[in-house]
Amino acid sequence: MKKKKKVKAAILIIGNEILSGRTQDKNIAFICNWLNINCGITVPEVRIIPDVEKIIIKNIRFLSKQFNYVFTTGGIGPTHDDITAKSIAKAFKIKYGYHKEAYEILENYYGKEKFNDGRKKMAKMPVKAELIYNPSSAAPGFITKNVLSLPGVPSILNSMIENCKKYLVKGLKVHSKTINLFTVESIISKQLGVIQKKYKKNVDIGSYPFFRLGKIGVSIVSRSTSKKILMNVHKDIIKIIKYKKIKILNI
Amino acid sequence: MKKKKKVKAAILIIGNEILSGRTQDKNIAFICNWLNINCGITVPEVRIIPDVEKIIIKNIRFLSKQFNYVFTTGGIGPTHDDITAKSIAKAFKIKYGYHKEAYEILENYYGKEKFNDGRKKMAKMPVKAELIYNPSSAAPGFITKNVLSLPGVPSILNSMIENCKKYLVKGLKVHSKTINLFTVESIISKQLGVIQKKYKKNVDIGSYPFFRLGKIGVSIVSRSTSKKILMNVHKDIIKIIKYKKIKILNI
Repeated sequence: MKKKKKVKAAILIIGNEILSGRTQDKNIAFICNWLNINCGITVPEVRIIPDVEKIIIKNIRFLSKQFNYVFTTGGIGPTHDDITAKSIAKAFKIKYGYHKEAYEILENYYGKEKFNDGRKKMAKMPVKAELIYNPSSAAPGFITKNVLSLPGVPSILNSMIENCKKYLVKGLKVHSKTINLFTVESIISKQLGVIQKKYKKNVDIGSYPFFRLGKIGVSIVSRSTSKKILMNVHKDIIKIIKYKKIKILNI
Repeated sequence: MKKKKKVKAAILIIGNEILSGRTQDKNIAFICNWLNINCGITVPEVRIIPDVEKIIIKNIRFLSKQFNYVFTTGGIGPTHDDITAKSIAKAFKIKYGYHKEAYEILENYYGKEKFNDGRKKMAKMPVKAELIYNPSSAAPGFITKNVLSLPGVPSILNSMIENCKKYLVKGLKVHSKTINLFTVESIISKQLGVIQKKYKKNVDIGSYPFFRLGKIGVSIVSRSTSKKILMNVHKDIIKIIKYKKIKILNI
């Protein structure tokens, strides 16, 4: 069996509505979670950009070279501001037009009479792209080279994500272990830093303050591709907690 | 009076917890909204990156050249993974160390006895930075050249945002007008595209599907720095709606 490697994806959120603050993005956390847990794929970079062709092209070219995969969200609907598909075709200098299978899916879904120009536009994409099927509203996403394009509406995106799996090479799964404490970060920061240094190469330790039941707490999250090393880190952290007599909320 | 110009800011979210999907970001929408409404500053790009020094440095250098301002969130707390301040100092090759006023604020807040090494770390930043005061938990943010650094915890960030204002030059305010319709995008996409073309230079028209009361709807959002042109666009859109006999949910 081939040994699994680190696989990395970027996410490119395309949409003026996110940058204006009108819409709260929910796709980033969802895709990051799904890739981490289901595919062992980490996301080292996310970018949010407007519906502007030359900016989309520049980012697609850059990110598709830097990462194993790029996920785009938004801009694949029927209106004039939906320019993701055309921009990706231009970025890779490949043919853009009606995608035969996508056209059939949409014509079949809407019926010939209601299949108007706006709806037909959703069948326009790089003509040789492979489709990402859409069980909730028919209009498919697509994969162009290593770029997977999904819609911006979270409920539709969520329903399509499993259909991305067959196009992805799985990477090393990142395991995580969380300890929630009723304390403040500064009480344990020094010792946590020492542990992080000890496991520098294999583990990422993060410390995140929270407020619960009117009390201040800290979540300590350790992440590693090795379960064994993660357990050693966990034991080291527990030692500090006991020594400092800190109350554990849950592990 | 000097005529106002377009002022642009980038947002750089620094934090592994966002990229792992563990934490749902809430700062992007908040900052974008605040900048738009209160300062007439638009946000053409957001990036989310991990707590890695060389990546922070690269992005700070790039974005601070491209935009009038850069807002960073995250990485200014007391733990080992809080490396934003040090990385920004390195990016601009300026002195990093205890900031006199920040040190005094924190020592005063915690009291000499409880002012431990973790808490002292929060006074370390570019030594000549100006402070962004923090009314909720004392530890200040700071502005280095055109880079404003805020914490990652949304409630604390929200409480500090007004203290950024004095460092910002205001830009042209972008006005917006929204019409919510009970229809589907494809019914109006063609005509909307024609209107967008007519007002290409001055207005951005976006179309966003929504689901409400079990019905499908579309929000049409027009944005422009000119209220007058926005009203003309609005009239043109109303004409289509009447012609198509579409039900208006609200304006």
